[in-house]
Amino acid sequence: MAKRRAKKEDFMFKKILIANRGEIALRVIRTCKEMGIKTVAVYSTADKDSLHVRFADEAVCIGPPSSSESYLKIPNIMAAAEITNADAIHPGYGFLSENANFSRICQENDIKFIGALPEQIEGMGDKATAKATMKKAKVPCVPGSEGILKDLEQGLKLANKIGYPVMLKATAGGGGKGMRVCNNDEEFEEGWHSARQEAGAAFGNDGMYLEKFVEEPRHIEIQIAADQYGNVCHLSERDCSIQRRHQKLVEEVPSPFMTDKLRKDMGEAAKKAALAVNYEGVGTVEFLVDKHRNFYFMEMNTRIQVEHTITEEVVNYDLIKEQIKIAAGHKISGEDYFPAMHSIQCRINAEDPFNGFRPSPGKITNYHKPGGHGVRIDTHAYAGYLIPPYYDSMISKLIVVAQTREEAIKKMRRALDEYIIEGVKTTIPFHQQLMQDEDFCKGNFTTKFMETFELKEP
Amino acid sequence: MAKRRAKKEDFMFKKILIANRGEIALRVIRTCKEMGIKTVAVYSTADKDSLHVRFADEAVCIGPPSSSESYLKIPNIMAAAEITNADAIHPGYGFLSENANFSRICQENDIKFIGALPEQIEGMGDKATAKATMKKAKVPCVPGSEGILKDLEQGLKLANKIGYPVMLKATAGGGGKGMRVCNNDEEFEEGWHSARQEAGAAFGNDGMYLEKFVEEPRHIEIQIAADQYGNVCHLSERDCSIQRRHQKLVEEVPSPFMTDKLRKDMGEAAKKAALAVNYEGVGTVEFLVDKHRNFYFMEMNTRIQVEHTITEEVVNYDLIKEQIKIAAGHKISGEDYFPAMHSIQCRINAEDPFNGFRPSPGKITNYHKPGGHGVRIDTHAYAGYLIPPYYDSMISKLIVVAQTREEAIKKMRRALDEYIIEGVKTTIPFHQQLMQDEDFCKGNFTTKFMETFELKEP
Repeated sequence: MAKRRAKKEDFMFKKILIANRGEIALRVIRTCKEMGIKTVAVYSTADKDSLHVRFADEAVCIGPPSSSESYLKIPNIMAAAEITNADAIHPGYGFLSENANFSRICQENDIKFIGALPEQIEGMGDKATAKATMKKAKVPCVPGSEGILKDLEQGLKLANKIGYPVMLKATAGGGGKGMRVCNNDEEFEEGWHSARQEAGAAFGNDGMYLEKFVEEPRHIEIQIAADQYGNVCHLSERDCSIQRRHQKLVEEVPSPFMTDKLRKDMGEAAKKAALAVNYEGVGTVEFLVDKHRNFYFMEMNTRIQVEHTITEEVVNYDLIKEQIKIAAGHKISGEDYFPAMHSIQCRINAEDPFNGFRPSPGKITNYHKPGGHGVRIDTHAYAGYLIPPYYDSMISKLIVVAQTREEAIKKMRRALDEYIIEGVKTTIPFHQQLMQDEDFCKGNFTTKFMETFELKEP
Repeated sequence: MAKRRAKKEDFMFKKILIANRGEIALRVIRTCKEMGIKTVAVYSTADKDSLHVRFADEAVCIGPPSSSESYLKIPNIMAAAEITNADAIHPGYGFLSENANFSRICQENDIKFIGALPEQIEGMGDKATAKATMKKAKVPCVPGSEGILKDLEQGLKLANKIGYPVMLKATAGGGGKGMRVCNNDEEFEEGWHSARQEAGAAFGNDGMYLEKFVEEPRHIEIQIAADQYGNVCHLSERDCSIQRRHQKLVEEVPSPFMTDKLRKDMGEAAKKAALAVNYEGVGTVEFLVDKHRNFYFMEMNTRIQVEHTITEEVVNYDLIKEQIKIAAGHKISGEDYFPAMHSIQCRINAEDPFNGFRPSPGKITNYHKPGGHGVRIDTHAYAGYLIPPYYDSMISKLIVVAQTREEAIKKMRRALDEYIIEGVKTTIPFHQQLMQDEDFCKGNFTTKFMETFELKEP
């Protein structure tokens, strides 16, 4: 890497391999085209008719449908990079985007990984380590155990010291697995055993830690960008509180809960977090904000996020472009960005909202995307597209931008009404009802919103 | 109308009938939905499967495919408005949008015509009258005859006084008909006879006038908005110099030829033009700008224009929404708007650019619209849509917005590359070549650009 780092500000990659599929692969290709960089798509046999394959300059099949045999198979991806002579790899989100091993292998092969360095991924990937780093850097964290709990007894003692309710969490966890809310000693003891077992089975690691349970929490995250020269800026927040089983459904900026002071404080904290791990690239620091506007570090995502789009809309900043430029060794100004407009994103998934959000893969028979002023769509879907059953069910991101939150909601309503996807079930009807919900429209929601939201049968 | 005008600022229409088809009908429906106004679509039998029919709250068939029997047939449209109880009519562009008679009939039936008043349309519709009004209001006009020329002798005398080259124009003309450039007395005499004959046959009016021929002209127009209370503002310019036979192909803002001083002067002139006819609504004052940056009034379009979109992108202003609000009696601030970004629009027509831009109606078999950051599409097309042969061949407007002209061009290139329309020929290949053209990229073009632009066969 030393060789590349020594190059001038105007160095740019010639060819980027995108180690991903779906809308994010297409999203990265779009920016590469605008930057004049050649692109290589990789695809599993299930994705041979996918648009990212059609629009890339070159495409390499890397295996059968199963992710573990294709999009997660590092040797196949490295081979594809080698035969196409790509000088950088963009991992998108999911798959290998936060895989320290992959980042390291790229480094060793002198192919720039457009994402975090191995040590940064490792530092942020293990939640207990990350929290310790953050506490040291004076980034506010939820009160809790210092690292992994030794045993049940230590846990019970600490829970009583902090005060119930507390949350038990698996250190290797994610997606809600190995996680328990405990209101008293009995629940703690029960949760300790069951969550440990669950975590051991799911992650091969049953290490547990505990935290204060945050009241009326909102999930508010800060987008940051940092270059190799120690310059770091924030690009304001995204409110991602509308979640179902820890899966984000809707994101927006500004957060209806935000104040200028809170944004300033959270922005500074996020920058501290990035500096604490010498972060390089674009990343997101996720916080929980309680009803008193206390905020607590949750985790840092060392990659581009699904919801980066809404930030782009309100601050006029192509995050993928900046990500690529930073990876190429360019400097950023270090100035913070503040939202000039209001943007909302609805994730359109091929799922049946009236049947427990069960995935609904299959062929799209009829397709019309909404358009017009203030409407953006990032999607790889088209009429005739066969949604494969093997991957994430998200098929489209519908983004609106308007002067005010009220106008953005109205625009989203009309865009959703106009979105025609036939042949598969989608979450459009859910979003339509959400956009009419009184509490949502008032900005009155927490991460628990979906637990009580009642979807009306059509 | 007195009754309606007396109402308060918060008056709003309940139901708007859109007397148009295609993308503009859809465009108006979109804004109405965002404003909570019900919509009525009208359609000819050829358009029964069109999206404007699907997305309106109600739809009324107004006749057979022929425009004169449907979209231009005033009694049918008025009947549709009456049976659906619409309290306003939006005419879009083309068709009846600048028909003073239609505006008057709406007025007489107490249905608000969302456009200019009959006397404003009449005042601007006849070119000789419009020019006289503008001269009186001190809006710069091309030197030429005062109104219609009496006879050939008067024409020849004036042409010699102004100096050749001069342009002979039919007062009722449009679209290049009844128009001649004359470099000397002989050409003038020949042009006088042939243009008069042409105009008489085409418009039933052979009145001619003459003007100084403008050197290296650019077509630059100013968007204005004016309310019922005498407030008027401009929303900067659009450069529409890329034309083929007086049909605009590409529009952009800012004009690469623009200076701050010229924008200020042209903006003031456009506002004077609007005030001179007590204009109400949104409108466009078209100017020719010569190589010395002298500008001359051409005409005023008393309606929304195809290219209003690019203005919306750079000033964040929904022109259809403002048009409706002004018609409802709302006030505007009167503050001018200046472009914060760069926007370009390519008109995608179902025409074969390699065969004299011959219309190519038919069925769209495969369709994928580009998306992502800074890309807007206004279209009524979809996979399976049958483009009827009866109307305008424009099927889509592709609009990009970026920080700079260079970035906007790059974005347009990638969006064009990504736009898949199969089953019919389109102008996409033309736009792709234009976006690579050295002169275009340098901003080095006039309205004559297309006369020498050479399209390469694929």
